Amino acid sequence: MSDLPKHVDIHEEGPREGFQIEPGPISTADKVKLIEALAETGLHHIQACSFVNPRLVPGWADAEAVVESFTAKPGIHYTGLYFNGNGLDRAQKYQDKLTLTGSISLTASEGFTKKNLNRTHAENVEAMKRQSALHVARGIPVNRVGVMAAFGCNYQGDISPAQVISTLEDGMRIAEETGAEITYFSLADTMGWAAPHRMERMLGEVRSRWPEMKISLHLHDTRGLAVANAHAALKMGVAQFDSTVGGLGGCPFAGQPKAAGNICTEELVLLCEEMGIETGVDLDALIEVGRMAEDIVGHQLPSELIHAGSLDAFRRKAAH
Amino acid sequence: MSDLPKHVDIHEEGPREGFQIEPGPISTADKVKLIEALAETGLHHIQACSFVNPRLVPGWADAEAVVESFTAKPGIHYTGLYFNGNGLDRAQKYQDKLTLTGSISLTASEGFTKKNLNRTHAENVEAMKRQSALHVARGIPVNRVGVMAAFGCNYQGDISPAQVISTLEDGMRIAEETGAEITYFSLADTMGWAAPHRMERMLGEVRSRWPEMKISLHLHDTRGLAVANAHAALKMGVAQFDSTVGGLGGCPFAGQPKAAGNICTEELVLLCEEMGIETGVDLDALIEVGRMAEDIVGHQLPSELIHAGSLDAFRRKAAH
Repeated sequence: MSDLPKHVDIHEEGPREGFQIEPGPISTADKVKLIEALAETGLHHIQACSFVNPRLVPGWADAEAVVESFTAKPGIHYTGLYFNGNGLDRAQKYQDKLTLTGSISLTASEGFTKKNLNRTHAENVEAMKRQSALHVARGIPVNRVGVMAAFGCNYQGDISPAQVISTLEDGMRIAEETGAEITYFSLADTMGWAAPHRMERMLGEVRSRWPEMKISLHLHDTRGLAVANAHAALKMGVAQFDSTVGGLGGCPFAGQPKAAGNICTEELVLLCEEMGIETGVDLDALIEVGRMAEDIVGHQLPSELIHAGSLDAFRRKAAH
Repeated sequence: MSDLPKHVDIHEEGPREGFQIEPGPISTADKVKLIEALAETGLHHIQACSFVNPRLVPGWADAEAVVESFTAKPGIHYTGLYFNGNGLDRAQKYQDKLTLTGSISLTASEGFTKKNLNRTHAENVEAMKRQSALHVARGIPVNRVGVMAAFGCNYQGDISPAQVISTLEDGMRIAEETGAEITYFSLADTMGWAAPHRMERMLGEVRSRWPEMKISLHLHDTRGLAVANAHAALKMGVAQFDSTVGGLGGCPFAGQPKAAGNICTEELVLLCEEMGIETGVDLDALIEVGRMAEDIVGHQLPSELIHAGSLDAFRRKAAH
């Protein structure tokens, strides 16, 4: 219990994860409305858009329009996702509004690297070297090594801690060669393979290898275990998570059209709060935003909490 | 970790919990089909119907027809829910097919007892005394003290371990006075108030008071924390759970029409299996039954796993 963090940092990715996968179309105005509403809940990190190829991700063809349209709230870090120099160029046009930091993003599964990026792992390492060097040359800090499919892969099966450590070592070598200063690792359960015991073993082994490095988790609730995985991770001191309001998003991999998306931000906040961990988020306000997200996409989202209401709302009613 | 059970007993309540709340109508034939399919998955306890007042629960007006129609599989305990002598009379007609055991069922929240049963707690204690005595007189074992709303209540707010212990003490007094031999406690999170830390505290305090008593959990996923709560309980050695296939059921209390139902059986099985705990259940077969349940009720069920498929199915594919 002593490992429990006092505060958890939540990086909201609902706009980016959600609108890239919704059959839509979702209007630019609705995207802006959601981003601005999220900013009023106490969240400090919001991934607002995706600067990816609009032919591949038509849902984000309006990334520029969205960034130009939303009113930024002081103190909030808005970010945009991108994968290459072209995406970085697009993001840099908004560097007054967006927080730009680079990431060395690798994948623990060679099978997934090929399917998702059409590259071998070795080719991806070379691409990330160029990407990291480009950021450093432009004075943009590269502070993160990310590992996708860190807990398992629909194409390759289970992923061992040794495989993840080897991938992180590749990332740290890239950082060293390119002059990047890594402050944290992000482990992504991209296809919903994590389970609490394997989560504990993974975190334990990565922490044995890099005792001082912060670890962030990007969890998907593909098989309903995301909150249990977050619980296991919190008990091991993990203090940073990505999540999406309402559970926006989905799993575009390996024929799972109805599969759930990321861990819901509001369920993560509830879990933390009930464990006595601060998030700085107003849960009732966030639940309202989850309901707004449901209205925007026009179908029920996976979050149970937005349908049931917070405990504090019932506590207040019961006290009267 | 040493408290982790080797085996978990799952009591499937999907037919009873699900069909009592679905707007329906669900045909008797479909109910029978689901019960018979569940029996092929390796589950050993199936709550097949509810002998309650058909005016209050029209979805179970055909309880007798269902019990008469399904083919019982040897080795499986089929049960029916009932709350009073009239219900017991109805269930006893099928004592060759149903496993009859009595329960002393109390509620930790006076507010909920009034709303749900239109009784005070004291009146409920008297009713349970009569109920237990009736079972004992008929030679039906009463082996369970159940506490509803054990983790919180929409009408009363948080419920303390002291309140649950006091309710269990009332139950044990009833057992003693009526000659019932209690072998386990069932704690129900009827309205989805539990969270992992409070779960640990509750289990710890109940176990301090009755170190030898087995504890079973009946969890609802109303706010998305059910699997995390199960994880916390498994780590404290809890080895018996109620659950519903597909997450059938819902929350008929306090205006939550879209709220989720019980913890999903298949997500509980996945959690156990990935933690190395046996359940005896064939997860892929159970996922197929979850999909059947979704077809029967005609709308998407809360289970994420039935939409994503099991890990083992992907492991097998990846190995080829």
